[in-house]
Amino acid sequence: MELAKTYSEAREKAFAAEGRGYPGAALVRMILEPGFRHARDRLLPHIRAINEAHLVMLAEQGIVSREDARRIFQAIDAVRDEDYRAKNYTGAFEDLYFEMEDEIIRRTDGVGGNLHLARSRNDMCVAWAHMEVRGEILSLLERLAAFQNTVRLFAVEHRETLYVIHTHTQHAQPGLLGHYFLGMADVVDRNARRLQRAYRAANVSPMGAAAVTTSGFPVSRARVAELAGFDAVIENAYDAIGNCDYLTETAAALGLCALDLGRVVTDLVVWATDEMRMIRVADGYISTSSIMPQKRNPIALEHLRSSLSLVKGLADAVQTGYVKSPYGDISDWEDVEGTLGAAFDRLDQCVQLFDAVLATLDVDRALLAQRARESFSVVTEIADEMVRSYRIPFRKAHHFVARLVRLADERQYNLLAVSREFFAEAYETVFGEPFAFDFEPIRRAMDPDHFVACREATGGTGPNAMAAMIAGAERKVAENAAWLDQARRALSDADIQRKAAVRGIMG
Amino acid sequence: MELAKTYSEAREKAFAAEGRGYPGAALVRMILEPGFRHARDRLLPHIRAINEAHLVMLAEQGIVSREDARRIFQAIDAVRDEDYRAKNYTGAFEDLYFEMEDEIIRRTDGVGGNLHLARSRNDMCVAWAHMEVRGEILSLLERLAAFQNTVRLFAVEHRETLYVIHTHTQHAQPGLLGHYFLGMADVVDRNARRLQRAYRAANVSPMGAAAVTTSGFPVSRARVAELAGFDAVIENAYDAIGNCDYLTETAAALGLCALDLGRVVTDLVVWATDEMRMIRVADGYISTSSIMPQKRNPIALEHLRSSLSLVKGLADAVQTGYVKSPYGDISDWEDVEGTLGAAFDRLDQCVQLFDAVLATLDVDRALLAQRARESFSVVTEIADEMVRSYRIPFRKAHHFVARLVRLADERQYNLLAVSREFFAEAYETVFGEPFAFDFEPIRRAMDPDHFVACREATGGTGPNAMAAMIAGAERKVAENAAWLDQARRALSDADIQRKAAVRGIMG
Amino acid sequence: MELAKTYSEAREKAFAAEGRGYPGAALVRMILEPGFRHARDRLLPHIRAINEAHLVMLAEQGIVSREDARRIFQAIDAVRDEDYRAKNYTGAFEDLYFEMEDEIIRRTDGVGGNLHLARSRNDMCVAWAHMEVRGEILSLLERLAAFQNTVRLFAVEHRETLYVIHTHTQHAQPGLLGHYFLGMADVVDRNARRLQRAYRAANVSPMGAAAVTTSGFPVSRARVAELAGFDAVIENAYDAIGNCDYLTETAAALGLCALDLGRVVTDLVVWATDEMRMIRVADGYISTSSIMPQKRNPIALEHLRSSLSLVKGLADAVQTGYVKSPYGDISDWEDVEGTLGAAFDRLDQCVQLFDAVLATLDVDRALLAQRARESFSVVTEIADEMVRSYRIPFRKAHHFVARLVRLADERQYNLLAVSREFFAEAYETVFGEPFAFDFEPIRRAMDPDHFVACREATGGTGPNAMAAMIAGAERKVAENAAWLDQARRALSDADIQRKAAVRGIMG
Amino acid sequence: MELAKTYSEAREKAFAAEGRGYPGAALVRMILEPGFRHARDRLLPHIRAINEAHLVMLAEQGIVSREDARRIFQAIDAVRDEDYRAKNYTGAFEDLYFEMEDEIIRRTDGVGGNLHLARSRNDMCVAWAHMEVRGEILSLLERLAAFQNTVRLFAVEHRETLYVIHTHTQHAQPGLLGHYFLGMADVVDRNARRLQRAYRAANVSPMGAAAVTTSGFPVSRARVAELAGFDAVIENAYDAIGNCDYLTETAAALGLCALDLGRVVTDLVVWATDEMRMIRVADGYISTSSIMPQKRNPIALEHLRSSLSLVKGLADAVQTGYVKSPYGDISDWEDVEGTLGAAFDRLDQCVQLFDAVLATLDVDRALLAQRARESFSVVTEIADEMVRSYRIPFRKAHHFVARLVRLADERQYNLLAVSREFFAEAYETVFGEPFAFDFEPIRRAMDPDHFVACREATGGTGPNAMAAMIAGAERKVAENAAWLDQARRALSDADIQRKAAVRGIMG
Repeated sequence: MELAKTYSEAREKAFAAEGRGYPGAALVRMILEPGFRHARDRLLPHIRAINEAHLVMLAEQGIVSREDARRIFQAIDAVRDEDYRAKNYTGAFEDLYFEMEDEIIRRTDGVGGNLHLARSRNDMCVAWAHMEVRGEILSLLERLAAFQNTVRLFAVEHRETLYVIHTHTQHAQPGLLGHYFLGMADVVDRNARRLQRAYRAANVSPMGAAAVTTSGFPVSRARVAELAGFDAVIENAYDAIGNCDYLTETAAALGLCALDLGRVVTDLVVWATDEMRMIRVADGYISTSSIMPQKRNPIALEHLRSSLSLVKGLADAVQTGYVKSPYGDISDWEDVEGTLGAAFDRLDQCVQLFDAVLATLDVDRALLAQRARESFSVVTEIADEMVRSYRIPFRKAHHFVARLVRLADERQYNLLAVSREFFAEAYETVFGEPFAFDFEPIRRAMDPDHFVACREATGGTGPNAMAAMIAGAERKVAENAAWLDQARRALSDADIQRKAAVRGIMG
Repeated sequence: MELAKTYSEAREKAFAAEGRGYPGAALVRMILEPGFRHARDRLLPHIRAINEAHLVMLAEQGIVSREDARRIFQAIDAVRDEDYRAKNYTGAFEDLYFEMEDEIIRRTDGVGGNLHLARSRNDMCVAWAHMEVRGEILSLLERLAAFQNTVRLFAVEHRETLYVIHTHTQHAQPGLLGHYFLGMADVVDRNARRLQRAYRAANVSPMGAAAVTTSGFPVSRARVAELAGFDAVIENAYDAIGNCDYLTETAAALGLCALDLGRVVTDLVVWATDEMRMIRVADGYISTSSIMPQKRNPIALEHLRSSLSLVKGLADAVQTGYVKSPYGDISDWEDVEGTLGAAFDRLDQCVQLFDAVLATLDVDRALLAQRARESFSVVTEIADEMVRSYRIPFRKAHHFVARLVRLADERQYNLLAVSREFFAEAYETVFGEPFAFDFEPIRRAMDPDHFVACREATGGTGPNAMAAMIAGAERKVAENAAWLDQARRALSDADIQRKAAVRGIMG
Repeated sequence: MELAKTYSEAREKAFAAEGRGYPGAALVRMILEPGFRHARDRLLPHIRAINEAHLVMLAEQGIVSREDARRIFQAIDAVRDEDYRAKNYTGAFEDLYFEMEDEIIRRTDGVGGNLHLARSRNDMCVAWAHMEVRGEILSLLERLAAFQNTVRLFAVEHRETLYVIHTHTQHAQPGLLGHYFLGMADVVDRNARRLQRAYRAANVSPMGAAAVTTSGFPVSRARVAELAGFDAVIENAYDAIGNCDYLTETAAALGLCALDLGRVVTDLVVWATDEMRMIRVADGYISTSSIMPQKRNPIALEHLRSSLSLVKGLADAVQTGYVKSPYGDISDWEDVEGTLGAAFDRLDQCVQLFDAVLATLDVDRALLAQRARESFSVVTEIADEMVRSYRIPFRKAHHFVARLVRLADERQYNLLAVSREFFAEAYETVFGEPFAFDFEPIRRAMDPDHFVACREATGGTGPNAMAAMIAGAERKVAENAAWLDQARRALSDADIQRKAAVRGIMG
Repeated sequence: MELAKTYSEAREKAFAAEGRGYPGAALVRMILEPGFRHARDRLLPHIRAINEAHLVMLAEQGIVSREDARRIFQAIDAVRDEDYRAKNYTGAFEDLYFEMEDEIIRRTDGVGGNLHLARSRNDMCVAWAHMEVRGEILSLLERLAAFQNTVRLFAVEHRETLYVIHTHTQHAQPGLLGHYFLGMADVVDRNARRLQRAYRAANVSPMGAAAVTTSGFPVSRARVAELAGFDAVIENAYDAIGNCDYLTETAAALGLCALDLGRVVTDLVVWATDEMRMIRVADGYISTSSIMPQKRNPIALEHLRSSLSLVKGLADAVQTGYVKSPYGDISDWEDVEGTLGAAFDRLDQCVQLFDAVLATLDVDRALLAQRARESFSVVTEIADEMVRSYRIPFRKAHHFVARLVRLADERQYNLLAVSREFFAEAYETVFGEPFAFDFEPIRRAMDPDHFVACREATGGTGPNAMAAMIAGAERKVAENAAWLDQARRALSDADIQRKAAVRGIMG
């Protein structure tokens, strides 16, 4: 390769390639051109909303005269987003906003310059970034609400589907598939609420901070916030720029959501193995092999497993970008916002895919029930029953049951083969005295249906406990849906209020 | 090195070194022995509280007879934590808890085995882990409240300390040091509230989940939760074990706190450079050089910078530990809890050190004020004032001011050298007509004291805006302190209530 | 929002939205459509090379007849990459490769199906991924070599530029700016070599692994590897698919590179502050303010700071994606490769920008020299000289110098004010006897030029030590450039050899 | 809680709690006291070696007279590590080293102060840290070599153990368990070599850099490096302090090792499930349940899964600690080295545990073979054989086999039930003509033993391919063991050489 021999040669080559003035080509490639595209593709509605909200406030506070405000509003109206959506970075303006402002100023013979009174690029750009993040959170919450509903309905569908729960990879106890998925519904619910809190942290307005000290003009920061749909103002003006919660707390909530969903996927991947066959992923989400028709590769689950981990990594990357950044620094969000957006997009796709997989998932109920009836996963209950019915002390009962299972194992009995005779024989072996109790309680305790039905403590598998959780799951979905409706309405109310205020000024 | 030649040789060597039975030596080293020490050093109060709360409930529900309960309570009382605090792992028992339980059973001729009715190691161990985390959060919140108070008082102390704010490493505008630190107080406040939310997520009870389905006995999970100081029950029994928010949301909140504090430290390190000399770190936190007495290495700030990043990393490590862990798995917390504890400890030390550094920090007010008076950081206000007083359009005013500064630069004038004559000369040069306005508004606009005083918008540097933020800062500290008091009181109330219930049963 | 009321409703909605057959719409959106675009935009040359190399081998080994091979080569030739570059995902084929293969089969009346003999999608797709990564590494290494050269030339340019080195933010010793940047050149060099090692880890062939056990046909894996430009074969067929070093070791090397470059940027940002003014970033990379012409925001450095941290995070995300992935799993690279590509792209942009900033950076040599002459950073040498010339024991000499500096400080002397008289006075004060030595050695020791010149130990600032490092820096750049040339040549040689082999078969 | 009301109250409280002088109590707690313990427990041999190596060099270069050197060596000898191993931080000295130096100076009437000529705390402390890291790498490499040997022997043990390979969680092809573990042996091998490279990066000497510019004395940096066992000098003196590869590249290699081992563990956990029962973890590493003797919880695998992820996180935390640290900064290693040590310790424990688990692992060979004989995982070979023996085109053969499997599925046949008759029937159904070929090739192709045996391509499951890999695996273990022996010998040779040089001076 060709390398410069002297520093002056390197310098001249650099100036030749980069240009001598602002902006150098490398800066354009890394920051300005991608920034232009981002503004063009994502920020135009935010730019418009902030311009309108700020100008309404300037007019109401008498900082800009009504007449000037009217002229500027006309220019803002005349500048069409569609035209800017088709533009590319040319270098003629530093960024898309300056290109728009230039048109506004030209259309108003310079009066439009007053639109920028009492604000700066700091608060304005950071405000757009907040608005972008709040929109991404709301979209994700919409997906999550739908997903939470699917999880809940799947749980209801399987409220009586008996299966053997694994703990530590081993058969542990009979359970209900719906019970597992009610747990998962709560996982989704907690993540939704965490993202709602991130929304509250993100939906606050930096506007009016100007650079970092506010302005000498009598601005109303609260009014701009209200008209732009923010829940509140970030009070301290230095903090208004420096506060990075809208990026980092959001990223953390996103990462935790990916982490939590990925844990469930880890279970499902194992459940889908040839040996487990607990679930059958629908045709749309498995890849087959042209020569092995019985091979059903659940690639959707595998991609969820991997992509959800990746989302965790992307969310962490946003935070790593801010490690040791100065407080109050104002450029770093430009570097990380694309990665936050990528994390949102991928998580959104994951939630959609997971939702579709679950909505179309088949379960082999008969096989699951059979395993539950054959396995010794009920033995906890046998021991408990001996305490209750025979008044045998707990440790003794447990000791006996352990021996019982070992004896069964030696004869290769499964649970169904444990008769009164066999039980009595074991009893006599262990306790050295004949079995003189009613066997019925034991027979019942050996029934996995009984096992799950008798667990009526809060959160258990008993029918009442399940009914309570099912009711709760429905309520939680409804609450999250209502939260979303309220948040969306607040934003559209702010739009309406702002448009009305503009009309009020326009007369 | 000596390596086995055959698999059977390797196998024999392994059995020889590890033993043939449970537990193998390598498992002891990695898990069981550290787990024993952790239990001994941190968990004894939690073990006692859970034992008592559970047994009270068993007795109240009639699952264990009053008489049996009395015997077991006596044994629990007789088992002294001090004795266990001196123990080491011997291998005779799987863990410390089983060693205690064995003593309880021995002291009660076997009746003590009923203490374990309707619970399992799952819910019990996870409950201890929750209690440990809640304690760590409370301790950190206590440090943070004290720190937030110091930040606020430092801000009050410097509510009138004029300085030049940097943006993008360059002099930008006059500001008040107290204004910056009021922003920082809000940063601390947001982190405290985030940790309070993590506390609410962590202070929930898994007790009664037993393995993962609750129990066939008529337990009251709510009662155990109440008596152990939990705010609520984790309803779904599968989720009670699987929910990892108490670790992961807590870790995320911890990491964000470290990230946020580290950003302020980044500023302070630069402020401490020989060239900036904005702050002077107290003797206790600088290392000197025996031969360069003027050299004051602010090593406390440097260590804060590095350690806070490390804490972010440790908090992330806890989450990485859970990536793709199965939902409902019950061992992983054992692997990560030490790292979460290390993150808490280091952050606690960082907050203490930061608190001490700030409480003893000197500021060269005269130097800072001088820089503010000499720099051109006020120019935004000059242009604004020309709009206000001379009705010169905004863009024109700014254009003029830019020229003014360039002219001053050519003559190597600082701001103090800008007289009416010089201003008028520049005016005539730019506008082509004599300067016919009153100079007084400009003179005032050039005063950095005026600059900060006139910024009375919400969150600005004006005296009323500052007073409002100072009042707010005081209120927020008080709220956080009150929150803490309430949380602590809730825990001690639960202790009192539990002890009373025990006494009630003991008669 | 509208939510399904029952599971069957949810299921029907899912099938309606997603379709019943493979592939479901959500899978298309997340995986198949992006995968198609990736293949179209990046993989076409790799697909062609692997097809050719594999088919040459099949023919040479007699697995496919020469005649069939000729027909298939004609079809491969007839299938034009340009046509596929214009395609979009339609769903008619699972992916772009199958679409191409279908065309090949059609053009050969089915014979083309034999192209897939003794290979599978596993080894083929993973081979493409390896080739993509090796190309990305080479591109980055090319940027790094150019950058390393710029750093070295900058160092040469400033081989005599005196400045005061900071340690712990404080003035420590006189140094040479070129010395610092020779250190930085070594940092870049180490990263280049780490990436070369990653290249060696990545440029190995999985071809012939087929699924995971190779094939019953007598394939030559070495031949395919050779013809596709790989350095070697990944021997074990299971490992050929499972080995993720090409992704994870590459990501780690990338992350370390970003970390290392970011540390230098941290210094430069501080050096650019108004108070330090050690460096002046060229116009192309600073943003100015229309009203504060003296304000030169070095935004290029700020974006480098933030983006390099982000690259570290992105590189980590690739690794997080693989945490707890099964060994031998074959889908996960699809999920993470886009993020690895994003990390490469951003780091490439960062290196270009950093290169341009450095190639055009101005240094205020006079100011730096002046600071070095005025500061007491030489005092180490004074004490050393007293040991050497006056035979005063080390500790005593140091003790004296400390007092000397303190005295100077009291009189507000800088170093230039330390005369023989003042020195003698201090000497008498400290030692209680008149100063009876020759002052010349001390005067010389007080000269920062002497300070740097006398440090002739390996790696020091003396002219010979500097010359040795400068020669070394030139040699290292040349070595890295030669490495690159060799690697590029090996790839083009493989292309030539493969084309020749194809021609040989075509006759 | 009690909070200060005013800043002066906060200040007074801080001084009261922290002391007014250096060091403040919070700094002691976070840095100085832990640093003292670290030095006491880990660094004493390094301190001694560096002292000796440096002093030999000073004497050889004539910087310190032979006589002075002799006195200092006597004092170094008299200062006993055992005494310091029992010390605790008192505050009387800044750190343990200064306490030792003080004793040396006292024992030599001040002459010992010359031991510190031409060095500084920078190069000395960083040298110790390098030595600590190199020792940790060697220890880990020793564990890994033993583990690699166990993996290889396990593979040899199972070189003929037939099993069904899963891909995408589904039965894919017959394989050999030894084949999988030979792949794993290569994974371990690559990690060992990566750590060897990290060792080369870490085992370089900063000594002689003094602060950052070397010294005016005619030191020989190469000689000190040689006597302290370093492979080379870090040439540039600034870089000698700033280079963080010994921490960060080491951490990256560690993290990749944990990641890679964790992937294998993910497989093994699934293999251990009740449904798979492919492996049976030995009694030492499973926890049983007192009442379910058949329940064998493979907790060792579960802890490996989680702890290996944690190690990845800890290794990343070390790197996060250095994000945006200044280049040349000298304190940050103090903050992160404990975490690096924790990562080494945990990974060391994981490797030991994994080694023990594998050395004692039982495999149900009969069950695995049976599954292989019953499953249709051989079908790829049937189609291939039809191409070879019947000259049926590839796609047609595959189409037929797909139908064959589907027909078998309808009749609930497993592979063993596929007779010549059934095959012929299917053939006629598909091709519309009677089956007129010899069935023997097909019968052979249906044999999983044949399937694995015929795969003789490089890295395949055929006996020759396996033998080649087994030989390679043995060679690689031997190479790594030899590397270790050489590295250890180089260190002990340096010790011997240093001791001889000291004796030479002592006469």
